[in-house]
Amino acid sequence: MISHVYHHRVRYRECDPMGVVYHGHYLDFFEYARTEALREMGLPYKAMEDRGIILPVIDLAVQYKRPAFYDDLLAITTHFDGVPRVRIRLDYEVRRNGEDRVLTTGHVTLCFVDAATNRPTPAPPEVIAVFEKARTQD
Amino acid sequence: MISHVYHHRVRYRECDPMGVVYHGHYLDFFEYARTEALREMGLPYKAMEDRGIILPVIDLAVQYKRPAFYDDLLAITTHFDGVPRVRIRLDYEVRRNGEDRVLTTGHVTLCFVDAATNRPTPAPPEVIAVFEKARTQD
Amino acid sequence: MISHVYHHRVRYRECDPMGVVYHGHYLDFFEYARTEALREMGLPYKAMEDRGIILPVIDLAVQYKRPAFYDDLLAITTHFDGVPRVRIRLDYEVRRNGEDRVLTTGHVTLCFVDAATNRPTPAPPEVIAVFEKARTQD
Amino acid sequence: MISHVYHHRVRYRECDPMGVVYHGHYLDFFEYARTEALREMGLPYKAMEDRGIILPVIDLAVQYKRPAFYDDLLAITTHFDGVPRVRIRLDYEVRRNGEDRVLTTGHVTLCFVDAATNRPTPAPPEVIAVFEKARTQD
Repeated sequence: MISHVYHHRVRYRECDPMGVVYHGHYLDFFEYARTEALREMGLPYKAMEDRGIILPVIDLAVQYKRPAFYDDLLAITTHFDGVPRVRIRLDYEVRRNGEDRVLTTGHVTLCFVDAATNRPTPAPPEVIAVFEKARTQD
Repeated sequence: MISHVYHHRVRYRECDPMGVVYHGHYLDFFEYARTEALREMGLPYKAMEDRGIILPVIDLAVQYKRPAFYDDLLAITTHFDGVPRVRIRLDYEVRRNGEDRVLTTGHVTLCFVDAATNRPTPAPPEVIAVFEKARTQD
Repeated sequence: MISHVYHHRVRYRECDPMGVVYHGHYLDFFEYARTEALREMGLPYKAMEDRGIILPVIDLAVQYKRPAFYDDLLAITTHFDGVPRVRIRLDYEVRRNGEDRVLTTGHVTLCFVDAATNRPTPAPPEVIAVFEKARTQD
Repeated sequence: MISHVYHHRVRYRECDPMGVVYHGHYLDFFEYARTEALREMGLPYKAMEDRGIILPVIDLAVQYKRPAFYDDLLAITTHFDGVPRVRIRLDYEVRRNGEDRVLTTGHVTLCFVDAATNRPTPAPPEVIAVFEKARTQD
């Protein structure tokens, strides 16, 4: 399994009248986390788009266990399990930085899509290669 | 089963470089839909907050089947199944208005929480009564 | 002067820990208001984009006088002054529906841009015609 | 004059169908920039809120000169001019990191408000002291 940790400072605009992070913003945090995880693996999302591959979200789920508060520094862990084929599933855990207790968990499934035809397509060989390499280094 | 349909016009700010609604905004649409469904049942969320009950989201899931585009008029159907106890689950279907084909499905589970103690609490009798009445009228 | 009123219900996701609408969301309300104002004049923004004209924002300002609260029904008035040339300026007033007191004022300037060349361009004749007509009907 | 630079990576959710940052998100960037500027000066916004001082935005303006694109790394410079009294004005410049050319400029004015009375209040002495110190160090 490949793992990556991304840090996010909770912003005022992300907090609601209960004084906690509004539930919808966790999907934003997941986007930031997977973007930086892919970049670190050598696979910036922008480069994939430039090669004509887009990665729309096809399903997701989130479980909210404990709230996060304004100005908290969050640690969002992304796990990739295995090598992607047409789809890639990412699992997430959100913690307050330095704490063991998990605040939120979730997953997001993306699909490799050929932007020209708008049809699902297998992950290109260079993407497979990056995941194979990351897995062996893990 | 109790059902309610809410209409939402897709805004420019909700669309991404793929030209489609960014996946995170469906959670916003679900919030709008359940707020108006509850209001129509005679249970405005604001009135619940004023009585010291808050309803945080404890889990959710979304399945994205087909994209929605800028300026689409969407019809978001909310289904409530049964009478809530400590939790209430709402199921959603998103269609382009006037079409049968479902673009997106999902569910959100909310928990009744006493704002004073911050602990889960059974749905108050007046809430139960509203759901009982809505179910028999259905 | 051409005027149009758009109604917006304040959503939970738009409110911050002060319990009021977060200042950034007024720009969203302005977008909703001008989109519906243009549609009512017979000039849906989507039709302009389909003809190769885009309308990026080039400047804006907002003055916040009094807060808006969760679940408020807002009335956002858009004023267009005169017939657009390369730019169009829209002025806004936000009130609680049914009240005279203004909560927020602002303006947004848009520029007609040819999407093919990405250069400013005069408003096309059919746009001018719509504004001329709206002004005489006013 | 006191200056501070904050870096922000443009996210997919922030970009619109024109492929550029949606204009409203610059207000978010300004919030992130001033929060970190104040933190670095020894004045975290959260600590002010804990002492009963809130800082609502009372006016703002933005001038959009050139677009920012997906995955751009932006450098947002915040300038504070002088020592705040009841109000504090912050001026912003947004550049692509490492470039001289300014993409966007703007300002935001905040007002010191006593959260208990909800009335404007002079900046507390410890806030004045922090600004005095920052100015002399500049």
